[in-house]
Amino acid sequence: MQIAVVGGGECSLHVREVAEELGRLLAEEGHTLLCGGLGGVMEAACRGSAEAGGTVVGILPGERGDANPHVGIKIATGMGHARNAIIVRSSDAVIALPGGYGTLSEIALALKMNRPVISLESWDIAGTVKARDPREAIEILNRLLYI
Amino acid sequence: MQIAVVGGGECSLHVREVAEELGRLLAEEGHTLLCGGLGGVMEAACRGSAEAGGTVVGILPGERGDANPHVGIKIATGMGHARNAIIVRSSDAVIALPGGYGTLSEIALALKMNRPVISLESWDIAGTVKARDPREAIEILNRLLYI
Amino acid sequence: MQIAVVGGGECSLHVREVAEELGRLLAEEGHTLLCGGLGGVMEAACRGSAEAGGTVVGILPGERGDANPHVGIKIATGMGHARNAIIVRSSDAVIALPGGYGTLSEIALALKMNRPVISLESWDIAGTVKARDPREAIEILNRLLYI
Amino acid sequence: MQIAVVGGGECSLHVREVAEELGRLLAEEGHTLLCGGLGGVMEAACRGSAEAGGTVVGILPGERGDANPHVGIKIATGMGHARNAIIVRSSDAVIALPGGYGTLSEIALALKMNRPVISLESWDIAGTVKARDPREAIEILNRLLYI
Repeated sequence: MQIAVVGGGECSLHVREVAEELGRLLAEEGHTLLCGGLGGVMEAACRGSAEAGGTVVGILPGERGDANPHVGIKIATGMGHARNAIIVRSSDAVIALPGGYGTLSEIALALKMNRPVISLESWDIAGTVKARDPREAIEILNRLLYI
Repeated sequence: MQIAVVGGGECSLHVREVAEELGRLLAEEGHTLLCGGLGGVMEAACRGSAEAGGTVVGILPGERGDANPHVGIKIATGMGHARNAIIVRSSDAVIALPGGYGTLSEIALALKMNRPVISLESWDIAGTVKARDPREAIEILNRLLYI
Repeated sequence: MQIAVVGGGECSLHVREVAEELGRLLAEEGHTLLCGGLGGVMEAACRGSAEAGGTVVGILPGERGDANPHVGIKIATGMGHARNAIIVRSSDAVIALPGGYGTLSEIALALKMNRPVISLESWDIAGTVKARDPREAIEILNRLLYI
Repeated sequence: MQIAVVGGGECSLHVREVAEELGRLLAEEGHTLLCGGLGGVMEAACRGSAEAGGTVVGILPGERGDANPHVGIKIATGMGHARNAIIVRSSDAVIALPGGYGTLSEIALALKMNRPVISLESWDIAGTVKARDPREAIEILNRLLYI
C-alpha cells in the first residue's frame, strides 16, 4: 500500500524518534512511504523507512534538490502547497504527526477525499482516529486497510 | 482587493443569507470576490456580489460549465481540491463560512500562507479571527487590510 | 467569451505592437482577455485590452506581485509552467503570438483540449489556423466561435 | 536517474515494441522510469521496465485506478494534463516516442525546463536530439547525462 506520513518540516527530538520508528514499521509491513520529501517529520520518517529497506517517495513542493537525503523517488511538483492534495490523493491512508497549518491542510484534504487519517499526537479533528504510538498506528492502519 | 469567501458546497438557508449579505457588502466595498465557483455558500456569496455590481471570480475544480450562474470570470483549473491553494494564494484575505473538510483545508492553507482568515460561524482554528455577522466581518477585514 | 493570448515573455517591438492591437480588438469585441500575466506579448496584449476598457485576467506562475501593471484580476497559481494548462482550460479559444517553448506547450495543450488555436506569426503546428494580422485573427475567431 | 518516457496513449504495434525495448534498456541501465502511467506508449515502456526489474513510476492525470498494470508507484495528481509539467520537472531527461498534442506539450515543457529531449520517431521540434532506435536513445542519454 502507499501510506502518507504528514507532519511539520521542523520537529522536536521526541517527534523525530516517533516518526523514524513509524517509517521503519511501515517499511517492515511492506508499505511504500509517501511524504512531502522535506525535513523534520518527513525526513525522520524517510530515514526510518529507507534504513529498513522500504520504498520512499517524496512529493516535493519545488525541485528535486530540495529532497531530504533519504528520499528514493523524487517527484518535483513545482506547485508549492498545492502538492499536498497529490500526497493525499496518492495514498491509501494518512498518518499525521505534529505539524502546523500545512499538516492541518493535509488532514483536511485527506478527510475530504475519504482517506482514513490516523492522528499520532497531531491535530484533533473530528473524523481522525487517534493512536498513542507508532505501533498502535500500524495496528489501526492494518485494521482499516484489510477489512 | 481580492477577497476569498470559502464555505460548504451545500448550506442551510440561514448560512445562505449570511453568505449573500457578505457578498453584497464585499461588492459595495469595491472588493473582487474569489471563490470556488460552485454551489452553497459559494453560490450565495456570488449572487450577493453580482447583484450589487461586484466582480465575481470562480476558481473551479473542474470545467467552466460547473460554475454557478453568478460567476463572471471562470477559471477552470481541472485540478480538483488542489485548486483550493490557488484560491487562497490569489487572495488578500479569506472569509470562512460554515463548511466541511474542504473549507477546513482552505482555512489551513490560508493560515499557512499568512493570509488573514476571518471565521464567520466556521471552523474554530487558532489563528483565525471570529466575526459574528457579515457587517462585523467587513469591519475586521478593513482593519486588517488597511493598517 | 474568455480568449487566451499566449506568447513570449520577451518580444520584438513589432510583436509588441501586434499584441497590443490584438488586445484592444478583443476588448472592443467584448471578450475577456486571459493570459499568463507576465511581460512581453502578455503585457502588450494586457495593455491593449485594459486601455480599451476590457477585462484582463492574469493567470500567473507565481505570486500576484509578478503581474504586469495592466492585469486587473490576478490569479496566483504558484505552480510554474503547470499553470499553462489552466490558461488553456479556461479559454474558449487561444491566439498564439511568437514565443518559445512555453508558448509551444500552450498551443499543444490547447489542441489537446480541443480549443481552437489561431496562430499569429507563431509556431507552425498542424491543427492551428493562421492569421496574418490581429484584424484577421478576430475575424477567424468570430467565425470559429459563432457557428 | 529518473528518465521520463512520453508518447501516445494509443500506438501501433511497431511503436509498442520500440517503447517496450526502451523500457527494458532503461531498467538495465539502472534508471527509474517516469511516465504518465496510462496505456499505449506508456504501458509498453512500463512493461519493458517492470519485466526487467526496474522501478516504474506513473504520474497519473486522475486516480490510481487508472494506472496500467505495470506501474509500481502510482502518483495520482487529479489535475489532468497539468500533470505533464510534473512528469517533466521530475526527470533528468525525456525520451519522446510518437504521440499527439499531449506528447508535444511534454516535449515543449521539457525544452522550456532545460531537460534534454531525445526524439525517437516523435515530433520534430528544434532543440530535440534524434535517435533511430532505443539502443541509440540510451547511448545519447548516457552521453548527455554523464558529461
